[in-house]
Amino acid sequence: MPHDAGPDHSRRKERSRQAILEATRALVVEQPYDKVTVEAIASRAGVGKQTIYRRWPSKSAVVFAAVLALSEGADGQSVVLPDTGDLEADLKQVMRATVAEFDDPSFDRLIRAVNTEIANDPDLAAEYREKLSRPLDDAKKARLRTAERDGQLLPGTDFDLLLEMLYAPLFQRWLHRSGPLTPTYADALVEATLRAFGGR
Amino acid sequence: MPHDAGPDHSRRKERSRQAILEATRALVVEQPYDKVTVEAIASRAGVGKQTIYRRWPSKSAVVFAAVLALSEGADGQSVVLPDTGDLEADLKQVMRATVAEFDDPSFDRLIRAVNTEIANDPDLAAEYREKLSRPLDDAKKARLRTAERDGQLLPGTDFDLLLEMLYAPLFQRWLHRSGPLTPTYADALVEATLRAFGGR
Repeated sequence: MPHDAGPDHSRRKERSRQAILEATRALVVEQPYDKVTVEAIASRAGVGKQTIYRRWPSKSAVVFAAVLALSEGADGQSVVLPDTGDLEADLKQVMRATVAEFDDPSFDRLIRAVNTEIANDPDLAAEYREKLSRPLDDAKKARLRTAERDGQLLPGTDFDLLLEMLYAPLFQRWLHRSGPLTPTYADALVEATLRAFGGR
Repeated sequence: MPHDAGPDHSRRKERSRQAILEATRALVVEQPYDKVTVEAIASRAGVGKQTIYRRWPSKSAVVFAAVLALSEGADGQSVVLPDTGDLEADLKQVMRATVAEFDDPSFDRLIRAVNTEIANDPDLAAEYREKLSRPLDDAKKARLRTAERDGQLLPGTDFDLLLEMLYAPLFQRWLHRSGPLTPTYADALVEATLRAFGGR
């Protein structure tokens, strides 16, 4: 008799997981966030509501998982920042890409939804830091360490502070829609940050 | 016969407005944000729900008004930043006060609620900029202009960029609970900002 733990079952489970996460992303992009419900996600994914609740306790948990899944790479693959030996050029490349990403309307609604959740839920904020921010920050810090060794940053630079001064202005400008997100802005952030922390 | 437009009526209206705004602030501080409803506010303020809806279209509008009311000063009184002639000392004083404010639990829940609303509502974001951020930014820029004239800032400094690099890291650290909010942190932000934009 068939039972529920074979490879077919695993494959089906993974397919249903992917369908749920895709449905979640599509709905968040298309609809006002308070209109996105677990019921709507289930219906769009073609699964029962209980299939979602068996895996995630709440709407915020599914939305969060849907965003996390976007940065799931191949196993063991970790984020690496460009290293041409020129810190300013490398940071400008990364910041221009980040600014463009925040300026993309689909990405915008998805990240706005996640931000609402983590701003009001300390546990989700901690999970976000652990699973998304920390690996990214580690990659950025590895690049900064090389630059410090090459004399392109002041010795003893506080990398957390540097990364906050580089990224937080962009994040706030995006969140509050308080100014344009342009390549010029990306460059200006890098230049000011390197005036603050750059070596001789 | 008494009618509804005399000075008594105005006074009653203003008292009920204040009661509603105080009830809103109290509830937001005491309860999870999704538990705060227009009904609960009306009941706490001792008014009918319609009294609230006559003045504000939604919960988010009342919450926003409740926070705005905190910065209502005496008529015509505008915000001014300290000016001892020493930009670094003045900015450290202001930033230490701001960090302490964000680290206060009552303030925290109130501003977190407002941030959730403005992150998801472009119109409210624009009103927030107009009524709260802009007057504060104008006061800060007046202080920066004096400093630029005194040679304490690079000529032609982009004040918007400077203010973002000074404040956005604190805002993001607070919003994402990603690090301690201390006087040392306030000072470090001022020092790095002045390395980026400070004159000779």
